[in-house]
Amino acid sequence: MTKPLRIALAGLGTVGAGVVKLLDANAALIERRAGRAIEITAVSARDRTRDRGVDLSRFAWIDDTADLARRDDVDVVVELVGGSDGPALTLARATIAGGKSFVTANKAMIAHHGLELATAAEAKGVALKYEAAVAGGIPVIKGLREGAAANEIDHVFGILNGTCNYILSTMESPSVSGHGRDFGDVLAEAQALGYAEADPSFDIDGVDAAHKLSILASLAFGATIDFDSVAITGIRHVKAADIAEAAALGYKIRLVGLGEATSKGLFQRVHPCLVPVDHPLAHVTGSLNAVVAEGNYVGRLLFQGRGAGEGPTASAVVADLIDIARGETGPAFGMPVASLAHLPAAPAGERRGRAYLRFTVVDKPGVLAELTAAMRDAGVSIESLIQRGPAADGGVLIVLVTHDGPEASVAHALEKLEGSPSLIGAPMWMHILDS
Amino acid sequence: MTKPLRIALAGLGTVGAGVVKLLDANAALIERRAGRAIEITAVSARDRTRDRGVDLSRFAWIDDTADLARRDDVDVVVELVGGSDGPALTLARATIAGGKSFVTANKAMIAHHGLELATAAEAKGVALKYEAAVAGGIPVIKGLREGAAANEIDHVFGILNGTCNYILSTMESPSVSGHGRDFGDVLAEAQALGYAEADPSFDIDGVDAAHKLSILASLAFGATIDFDSVAITGIRHVKAADIAEAAALGYKIRLVGLGEATSKGLFQRVHPCLVPVDHPLAHVTGSLNAVVAEGNYVGRLLFQGRGAGEGPTASAVVADLIDIARGETGPAFGMPVASLAHLPAAPAGERRGRAYLRFTVVDKPGVLAELTAAMRDAGVSIESLIQRGPAADGGVLIVLVTHDGPEASVAHALEKLEGSPSLIGAPMWMHILDS
Ligand SMILES: NC(=O)c1ccc[n+]([C@@H]2O[C@H](COP(=O)([O-])OP(=O)(O)OC[C@H]3O[C@@H](n4cnc5c(N)ncnc54)[C@H](OP(=O)(O)O)[C@@H]3O)[C@@H](O)[C@H]2O)c1
Ligand SMILES: NC(=O)c1ccc[n+]([C@@H]2O[C@H](COP(=O)([O-])OP(=O)(O)OC[C@H]3O[C@@H](n4cnc5c(N)ncnc54)[C@H](OP(=O)(O)O)[C@@H]3O)[C@@H](O)[C@H]2O)c1
Repeated sequence: MTKPLRIALAGLGTVGAGVVKLLDANAALIERRAGRAIEITAVSARDRTRDRGVDLSRFAWIDDTADLARRDDVDVVVELVGGSDGPALTLARATIAGGKSFVTANKAMIAHHGLELATAAEAKGVALKYEAAVAGGIPVIKGLREGAAANEIDHVFGILNGTCNYILSTMESPSVSGHGRDFGDVLAEAQALGYAEADPSFDIDGVDAAHKLSILASLAFGATIDFDSVAITGIRHVKAADIAEAAALGYKIRLVGLGEATSKGLFQRVHPCLVPVDHPLAHVTGSLNAVVAEGNYVGRLLFQGRGAGEGPTASAVVADLIDIARGETGPAFGMPVASLAHLPAAPAGERRGRAYLRFTVVDKPGVLAELTAAMRDAGVSIESLIQRGPAADGGVLIVLVTHDGPEASVAHALEKLEGSPSLIGAPMWMHILDS
Repeated sequence: MTKPLRIALAGLGTVGAGVVKLLDANAALIERRAGRAIEITAVSARDRTRDRGVDLSRFAWIDDTADLARRDDVDVVVELVGGSDGPALTLARATIAGGKSFVTANKAMIAHHGLELATAAEAKGVALKYEAAVAGGIPVIKGLREGAAANEIDHVFGILNGTCNYILSTMESPSVSGHGRDFGDVLAEAQALGYAEADPSFDIDGVDAAHKLSILASLAFGATIDFDSVAITGIRHVKAADIAEAAALGYKIRLVGLGEATSKGLFQRVHPCLVPVDHPLAHVTGSLNAVVAEGNYVGRLLFQGRGAGEGPTASAVVADLIDIARGETGPAFGMPVASLAHLPAAPAGERRGRAYLRFTVVDKPGVLAELTAAMRDAGVSIESLIQRGPAADGGVLIVLVTHDGPEASVAHALEKLEGSPSLIGAPMWMHILDS
């Protein structure tokens, strides 16, 4: 057996403590699989006195995380602090500059600075690995980078945020009153259960999913990461009524991150959308994640599992460490940064599809005529329409599903209706996943 | 860019021709991803004159596949001939002995001779890779060997044979007469469509799935391959009536390969079983494959995709070649052969579970009493029982589902009933997948 792989852990929260536990529990097996032991030598976090449920007295405690990059007894630094910039980025730069390999679960940092870090890692001949950053325990970085590497991929999409998926799939189950449950109610419950952060905005506004999508798109399409061009809509405005109407039409609502390599460039979007009940993503419930990639030879691949949590995330971090111990590492994004294509952002307006539109309108004659005229004038053709109400709040619910057509036409129709006194609140527009 | 990786192809059938097409179609992308070009230099098959839909004039044609192992212009030999022994094994041994890396899609050979070949490859420091051998295009070898490497896995199961899955899921769809379709009828159709071989016995009798299961179990449990201890039951005796009764009970029938690491040793079984309709495997239809692994940290991982066919299988073969081109290779079974555990075969009799039993009985008084007495005497407790008939052939169908209990008791009850003049044909015993 060769010498142990010596690692330093920065961050000892949910994931960091999980990595300590996993390396303890499965040590013998990991040594057999990695061909050498994987040993923690040094750790760092903010509060030295906090009880983390693991014995840290065996490791050197380092007050300043940045010092981990300079230790002679460390081969790999594992960053589990979080944040796109700040101490995580300082540590990443210093580690790689110092000629050590770097492992992280930090999607925000990879989405924003992954190319810079990969370039530096290539120059230094060290590994930069981030399996845990996307879809937690599911080996989807590996699946795209290696498993599907022989394919032109034109399409990658999935459920990338467990908090949103938990909320949306819980909203499906009838509440005590027999109706679907409301967003705010379920969010509060998710926070109490630890499935949602105290400040849940990164999750429910779709930013976290967008970080992950931009990483997947880079791997799938052999392109540079372009987080800024992801069109993002979160799930805040999904109502119990939307879940119920979608169900009546044969759909579930899921927050889907979708990337496509089109002839016009790279299209990336995170948005709640309607997924047919017989689609694999419709069966992804609770805090699960799933990723689908379509390759020109392999066809459709689906990866599913736990997208977050102590155990699954630690599993992915340690998988990266085993790869490094085995010497099975290579360019972070599957090819040298210089080989990655710079794809322009594809304009959303040229996309086509079917749309779900929900309006709450005042209960008076002529409103339906106003809506349908706006659709007709914008060239939007209606496949089905349901009107229900009046509801308790006096409003009337109108839900329509369009035929396949340009998204720009739908946008145009909604612009026409903007500010109309017939509407109560903003309309809800969701795309229908037809692939 | 470094020098091209030069490969020789033995076998130019479905998969071999697919590899030629894929390397042509995606050449530029593969060169970016692999860091070097992957070039075929020599090919071999039986019939030099056969039109394979690809231009072979660019490559050296070699009459005897074994000669590929000795060529100076070849770095990696890819074996796509098939058969556990014969020319495939001769070529594998010669290639590795000659110090070249070896890639194959041949599950029969890996199941029977994988450990010998892995030992030889370790000694020579060359790669032995076989992603395409299990679940076609799905990167499940990589998923277990690397993606889930940090975990103790106690459980791996899946749908590993696309032919059987096509037949079983097609039997579900109503025929013209409105009933489920019969096995023989659907098999004939599958053969006509090219989804089943002219001699389908390896597929429908479960041997192909057992080859794959024994490979997955080795990777999942860090154990030597033990094909001989797989208990195998195929799908020949599944009737349209079973599909219908299972559906009425809330199940689909799937051919499942299941491996478990128990305290008594390694349990491996391939058998048609009842899968709850809300289980992920119930949604795996047609010729798809799916694999589930349960790790102690990652939880449940699901991999799904196309398990066979020219494109998917070629995708997996070329993924192996890209790994080799990148230098990301290591022990074939995830650890050196010497580190693999030798697990005894766990006795099936100590297993517990729920069972589905279908009897066709003669239409006379007392038969039901005879059956239920046999169950009672063997200690089998009945959860539900349905009697239908008499059917057109005069027989009466009795289907029962047992409570959770020892499998040995069910076997005992069936032994008691063996040879009873009340039974028409052998009873059908299927396990219920409760995990
Ligand atoms: N949780 C998940 O399920 C999950 C899944 C996938 C990816 N991730 C990613 O994994 C990373 C860690 O997530 P987490 O959930 O483990 O976070 P966490 O529980 O909040 O833990 C963060 C850790 O970083 C330490 N830390 C914070 N600021 C620091 C600073 N300035 N200097 C030194 N240490 C500092 C904290 O120290 P104290 O403990 O002393 O306060 C804590 O130990 C994030 O990038 C996250 O996006 C998490
Ligand atoms: N087909 C799939 O979807 C699939 C999926 C996963 C794995 N696999 C595995 O991939 C391997 C190949 O399968 P396949 O479907 O491509 O088989 P195939 O279509 O029957 O092709 C076999 C090839 O091997 C050649 N061959 C047969 N005997 C030979 C001999 N004695 N010497 C030299 N060449 C010989 C044949 O030559 P001629 O063409 O000249 O007759 C033919 O080109 C098998 O191990 C199979 O289990 C197949």
